[in-house]
Amino acid sequence: MAYLQRFYDPTGKELKSFCARNTLDGASVATQVQDILSAIKKEGEKALQRYSKEFDGVTLASLKVGAQEFAEARTLVSDDLKDAINIAAANIHTFHSEQLSQGESIEVMEGVSLWRKIVPIKRVGLYIPGGSAPLFSTVLMLAIPAQIARCESIVICTPPNKEGKIHPAILYAAEVCNVKTIFKVGGAHAIGAMAYGTRSIKKVDKIFGPGNRFVTEAKTQVGSSACAIDLPAGPSEVMVVATNATSPRFVASDLLSQAEHGPDSQAMVVLISNDPDGWIDSLEAQLSAQVKDLSRSEYVEHSLAGSKIAVVWDHHDAINVVNAYAPEHLIINTADERGDEIIMFFTENAGSIFLGPYSPESVGDYASGTNHTLPTGGWARSVSGVSVDSFIKKITVQKLSEEGLNILGPTVHTMAVAEELEAHANAVAVRLEKKR
Amino acid sequence: MAYLQRFYDPTGKELKSFCARNTLDGASVATQVQDILSAIKKEGEKALQRYSKEFDGVTLASLKVGAQEFAEARTLVSDDLKDAINIAAANIHTFHSEQLSQGESIEVMEGVSLWRKIVPIKRVGLYIPGGSAPLFSTVLMLAIPAQIARCESIVICTPPNKEGKIHPAILYAAEVCNVKTIFKVGGAHAIGAMAYGTRSIKKVDKIFGPGNRFVTEAKTQVGSSACAIDLPAGPSEVMVVATNATSPRFVASDLLSQAEHGPDSQAMVVLISNDPDGWIDSLEAQLSAQVKDLSRSEYVEHSLAGSKIAVVWDHHDAINVVNAYAPEHLIINTADERGDEIIMFFTENAGSIFLGPYSPESVGDYASGTNHTLPTGGWARSVSGVSVDSFIKKITVQKLSEEGLNILGPTVHTMAVAEELEAHANAVAVRLEKKR
Repeated sequence: MAYLQRFYDPTGKELKSFCARNTLDGASVATQVQDILSAIKKEGEKALQRYSKEFDGVTLASLKVGAQEFAEARTLVSDDLKDAINIAAANIHTFHSEQLSQGESIEVMEGVSLWRKIVPIKRVGLYIPGGSAPLFSTVLMLAIPAQIARCESIVICTPPNKEGKIHPAILYAAEVCNVKTIFKVGGAHAIGAMAYGTRSIKKVDKIFGPGNRFVTEAKTQVGSSACAIDLPAGPSEVMVVATNATSPRFVASDLLSQAEHGPDSQAMVVLISNDPDGWIDSLEAQLSAQVKDLSRSEYVEHSLAGSKIAVVWDHHDAINVVNAYAPEHLIINTADERGDEIIMFFTENAGSIFLGPYSPESVGDYASGTNHTLPTGGWARSVSGVSVDSFIKKITVQKLSEEGLNILGPTVHTMAVAEELEAHANAVAVRLEKKR
Repeated sequence: MAYLQRFYDPTGKELKSFCARNTLDGASVATQVQDILSAIKKEGEKALQRYSKEFDGVTLASLKVGAQEFAEARTLVSDDLKDAINIAAANIHTFHSEQLSQGESIEVMEGVSLWRKIVPIKRVGLYIPGGSAPLFSTVLMLAIPAQIARCESIVICTPPNKEGKIHPAILYAAEVCNVKTIFKVGGAHAIGAMAYGTRSIKKVDKIFGPGNRFVTEAKTQVGSSACAIDLPAGPSEVMVVATNATSPRFVASDLLSQAEHGPDSQAMVVLISNDPDGWIDSLEAQLSAQVKDLSRSEYVEHSLAGSKIAVVWDHHDAINVVNAYAPEHLIINTADERGDEIIMFFTENAGSIFLGPYSPESVGDYASGTNHTLPTGGWARSVSGVSVDSFIKKITVQKLSEEGLNILGPTVHTMAVAEELEAHANAVAVRLEKKR
């Protein structure tokens, strides 16, 4: 059985079809989410408690994680995992610290001083999905840049399990990042609570984090009206650029790590080759072999069904396919260092790039230090992944001296009059005492 | 007659009411815009031409501005205005050039190299409103940072007048910025054309620029699905912080320049004073006097009706009001340099700050060099104004050597196993030849 749909030298409509994402109809989700958000906005805490019971399946005396639960988590997480989390946190901290901008300052003309003042976003809300796996890595990826930006309030919402508990690794990761405010609530109602505020959860200024279709839809809906959001989110995806010299075993492992994310994940290959079929057969063989070792193999096989391979002639064509698809994760592994660098150099659209044979996506997902919250679904054309930039604002400031306004004033006056905005002109005129 | 609604020491609900924006019901606009966007998406050029005829009121052989029209514009713009535009463009260029980031690069561990690659957004679309005034200044504010970022394609859409022409100052400003692709089309259909692409207008990756309610609604709708947008937009606003020592004449001129923007603009004052009424009366007198000199005085008086003044005890309270309102434009003019600086220092939420008596908003609107595309409606809590940042993406790149993966691999493996993502762990394992 072949997993990958093969495209030979796709251009035009074929390239478009190669680049198409797996999409699901979202109309009924949108309506349900709208109802949930309206209820939270209108009824606040009461609605939050009701949905918590209905969707999270628990009734809790307090949504907030207490000190004892944090203490308990410390005893439940193995030392190995603690060490790993600490190493990952250190790398993420190191790389993201470099991103903190100082703001520029310049005197553009005599007496006309301009600068940008860097200010953290005050209140941020981080959503950490529950579901099948405890995504403590996402805690690190969102809380560390928030901490570096010096956001005053950092809160986490994450759904509890049926016993009303949060996975200890999530609590441990939060503690490593000095985040102490965690609410046991998930789903669209959690997004609504952060966007509008309820008695227990204070309104935040910006919401971050991945989630299922309900969470994503809720973020989209609040994002255009109530509260900023990090990124338009969608199913995860990887694109691997390879040649006949690339290890099919490595590529298969990368495709499978994408496939295990979910049934709508996409694992894509671009193969630069003029004799592709043997290599593709080896890749298929590796996929079959490796998938057997995975406990959730059936699930992974299902999600691999949407995977595709494009065979292209040369590096130039490969770059075209990469930029047309705009992958969230791009692994460039042509088994030739110079070739990898050329493709990287000309890549315009990607969330994060993994260069060379020893840079699997999973290093960036966890511990290299780059952020794993990245644009999906082609948004890499216009949007960057989460960074410290996502947690700050840059306020421009200008200060003119009397001399500065004397010099620049006539320019402003002329332009304002030409735009037929005479009060704008007048604000300069009264200051220059040249009252009309 | 008094223009300003007075609030004395507003806190709690009163402060909330002081900070409330003028809002208009948008439901019918949303439906109309949805229909227009669907038609553009489905029918492309045909729908674009139809709406162009219906809304812009003209039928044009070509939507695109030709070389002759650019040449004609050069002869129609006065030398004075050309000089003013050139000076403004130079200042905007100087300040925005400082904003171009180089990307950071670091080796976080031996053999684990990370950096951010700065890439311009390839295709950007700039919307320039038509309407009562020719907003050529907005051309400079959007096209100059796009040019500095090196966006490959910069197109402008702007509605023509009844003769099918574009104001010459808009064409001249575009030429100064080296933008040669201008389409004579305005409204929601122009946004749809840039978001989805039609025969004449190619799809862009991000849309920038202000507009009326239809344009704004269209940007919001495409922004969550088809195409990135610059900012959530809304009516313009200014907040002036003053004391009894501040010139009421200056403040009145600033409020009026805001009021002339439109009927839903807001002009707000925060007065630090324990004896406010005399100063407020002087301000009212100045407003009455200055408004008489304006040709559109009736219109301005109407829009001043939504204006408010908050009287507070001290600088601390003033800062609280400023941060609660989160103004697009903040003029800090307490007639005391040190006091101005303190308020600036503690300002967390504002689009752009104008410091001191000689920095009216109009200098930033036109020519000081800061950008005038700024967050309104309280979005300054979480969003920055347009800058070169808005036209670039930062792609993270990581390259691990074999040694690097040897060092970091076990950390990644431990975390992946703990998140129950065994294929992620396997992608490291196969590379380290430690096949399970």
